[in-house]
Amino acid sequence: MYNKLGKKLWKKAKKIIPGGNSFLSKNPNRFLGENKWPNYYSKAKGCYVWDLQNKKYIDMSMMSIGTNLLGYSNKYVDDAVRRSINKSITSTLNCPEEVFLAEKILNLHPWADMAKFARTGGETLSMAVRIARAASAKDKIVICGYHGWHDWYLSANLNNKNNLDTHLFPNLKFSGVPKVLKETVYTFKYNDFDNLKRIVEKDKEIGIIIMEVERDIPPKFGFLDKVKKLAKKNSIILIFDECSSGFSETFGGIHLKHKVIPDIAMFGKALGNGYAITSIIGKREIMKYAENTFISSTFFSERIGPTAGIATLDCMKRTKSWKVISDRGLLIKKELKNIASNYKIDLEIAGLKPKINFDFKYKNANFLNKKFTEQMLKRGFLASKQIYISIAHTPEIINKYLDNLDKVFKNISKSL
Amino acid sequence: MYNKLGKKLWKKAKKIIPGGNSFLSKNPNRFLGENKWPNYYSKAKGCYVWDLQNKKYIDMSMMSIGTNLLGYSNKYVDDAVRRSINKSITSTLNCPEEVFLAEKILNLHPWADMAKFARTGGETLSMAVRIARAASAKDKIVICGYHGWHDWYLSANLNNKNNLDTHLFPNLKFSGVPKVLKETVYTFKYNDFDNLKRIVEKDKEIGIIIMEVERDIPPKFGFLDKVKKLAKKNSIILIFDECSSGFSETFGGIHLKHKVIPDIAMFGKALGNGYAITSIIGKREIMKYAENTFISSTFFSERIGPTAGIATLDCMKRTKSWKVISDRGLLIKKELKNIASNYKIDLEIAGLKPKINFDFKYKNANFLNKKFTEQMLKRGFLASKQIYISIAHTPEIINKYLDNLDKVFKNISKSL
Repeated sequence: MYNKLGKKLWKKAKKIIPGGNSFLSKNPNRFLGENKWPNYYSKAKGCYVWDLQNKKYIDMSMMSIGTNLLGYSNKYVDDAVRRSINKSITSTLNCPEEVFLAEKILNLHPWADMAKFARTGGETLSMAVRIARAASAKDKIVICGYHGWHDWYLSANLNNKNNLDTHLFPNLKFSGVPKVLKETVYTFKYNDFDNLKRIVEKDKEIGIIIMEVERDIPPKFGFLDKVKKLAKKNSIILIFDECSSGFSETFGGIHLKHKVIPDIAMFGKALGNGYAITSIIGKREIMKYAENTFISSTFFSERIGPTAGIATLDCMKRTKSWKVISDRGLLIKKELKNIASNYKIDLEIAGLKPKINFDFKYKNANFLNKKFTEQMLKRGFLASKQIYISIAHTPEIINKYLDNLDKVFKNISKSL
Repeated sequence: MYNKLGKKLWKKAKKIIPGGNSFLSKNPNRFLGENKWPNYYSKAKGCYVWDLQNKKYIDMSMMSIGTNLLGYSNKYVDDAVRRSINKSITSTLNCPEEVFLAEKILNLHPWADMAKFARTGGETLSMAVRIARAASAKDKIVICGYHGWHDWYLSANLNNKNNLDTHLFPNLKFSGVPKVLKETVYTFKYNDFDNLKRIVEKDKEIGIIIMEVERDIPPKFGFLDKVKKLAKKNSIILIFDECSSGFSETFGGIHLKHKVIPDIAMFGKALGNGYAITSIIGKREIMKYAENTFISSTFFSERIGPTAGIATLDCMKRTKSWKVISDRGLLIKKELKNIASNYKIDLEIAGLKPKINFDFKYKNANFLNKKFTEQMLKRGFLASKQIYISIAHTPEIINKYLDNLDKVFKNISKSL
């Protein structure tokens, strides 16, 4: 009944790839478990995904963990990439698309003067950290939120192994991070300005604040402004990591909605609608320090990334994707609340408008999550307690999802 | 006469991208200078490159700095990528191609049990360093050669700002690398075993040796063996960086030619024939430590990279590309020597078989290099003192190049 080929391949994968795959968030054990989850896909289109045995699902979970706000296999973006392949995606000379993408992303953020690109989020943030450390001439950083796998970030766990627990992933393992990095990175609690202020005022070697602008809960009134003022007062460089929040509710960073401007902002995930392209943008007086430090990579020069970035931004603009997905996300939130209430299920609902998280407020929440995912899978949905909406999620598909969710929640309510 | 559009675009690029582009080795000032070099390409095919004004050149320089051993726009590789785009390059589920590429690259290196992938060389080496530090439980590293832009590598310059000067790029700037990393990374001189031995025996905290197996000059007889024995004796993890050397003379790492086996080997550049895919492979007892540390990235899960990797390895196997390019490279080396000798030019020729470096042994070598590049450009060649050969460089093209080089060397000889 379950995907035998997917199960078999995962078994092989675990033998030859540490952890089984390259991206924790796509590990089947984070959904239903490697024996029940389809594990692998053969193809995807819109919000449909086919497994290795050609079984079709509607993706109502994380849409490739936030990369595909324009749906899978978006024709406009894919066609642009196909054209770039026809003309070659690389040469000894540079591709002009890098400059065009820089212009486009800077136009969306008039406060920023310069851009740099990489191909993964973690590496882009390492770039931001390097430039900010060069500019501030201070090495210490205060962080809030999730910022990837590199040494600088995980070093926060050297002070206390649970430091990063509340910043998305609990129990992040950090073996192999150089021990000398201990006490170079501190964490602060989101929306707790006094916490941040105490840390900053205690250590004059802190030169950088890195934070997600908004993830599960919105910023308290004035919180972001206070952070910004504190940074300015202490000559601290403020970096907004918009890897997850960018393009979700706004055409660009979500800081545009909150009207708080950082020194550097970082974008990833949705920027190329699935293609690997990530970016930092920043003020010239900070970004120019990139010229005082060596940051360079062969594959930073390939053409698919910036081509996909340009086409994605064009398609977002044309479809007003951020509005479409926000409206549909709000609708789902509302209906989710109603359905839970109908069945007297205590459900906490949070998240950005098109990136919903819900939590069963019960001791056996993990069990209930799996039950939900398992029953939805049987009904043809990849579903989890996270629901990321794309423009491919039509009202019809959403209604179908909600109808099925209604039935599954009804079942779940009986077992509570 | 020179590419006006390319010049204009570079001028704009410098304003909005620090340094003008993302990859130092493609900076026009490393060739002929931004006012004379074409700077940007519109398309490329085989070993031909067209600039923004549609002027066609034969690439006899670095073929995208070593990524395209199968030529630009290789049909076999591109078709595989096109098929993956047709089926979607991403979804919430994993792509099976990651497992298939792991199998393929491990099959070429029977000593290795596990593989991990990234999308840039620098990030892959950071991954190797993390895993090796986790496995050895020691943080200190001895290095030789070029290994990217990340903190761990540049930290070698914290001890002495010229430490990395002889390891490919002189004067690597390292502003923003945390100062606490000082004395975590030491450099040793290639082919100087005693130098390495002294460093290793002086500091028992050294747990890792990272080196390029072979770049400009071959290893002295027994050198690699001695390194390997020293590592083993001191329980040091040996990492071979095969980013540049891999697939050049052998189907896999050049360590296969030298019959010296590391604990981890790293591949990049040529692995996807221009598409962004990089890899480490290693012994299970080392690689399993990847499960004790968090290494994960959204775009490590996209499908183009492994698809291109699989197709590239298949095409290499079918064409025996490493043999073809080695033979042609040896021919060019021989002819280059003859031509230089005919015109009494003192020329030093080095490098791997298909990756030739030549140097004018004169005080004004930089001037002569530029003169060479400028005159070859006028004759329709992207040419530099580095010549990277692909299977698209047919004997006819090579003859045409050598004919033109003969004339340019003749001119140059008059000015000596």
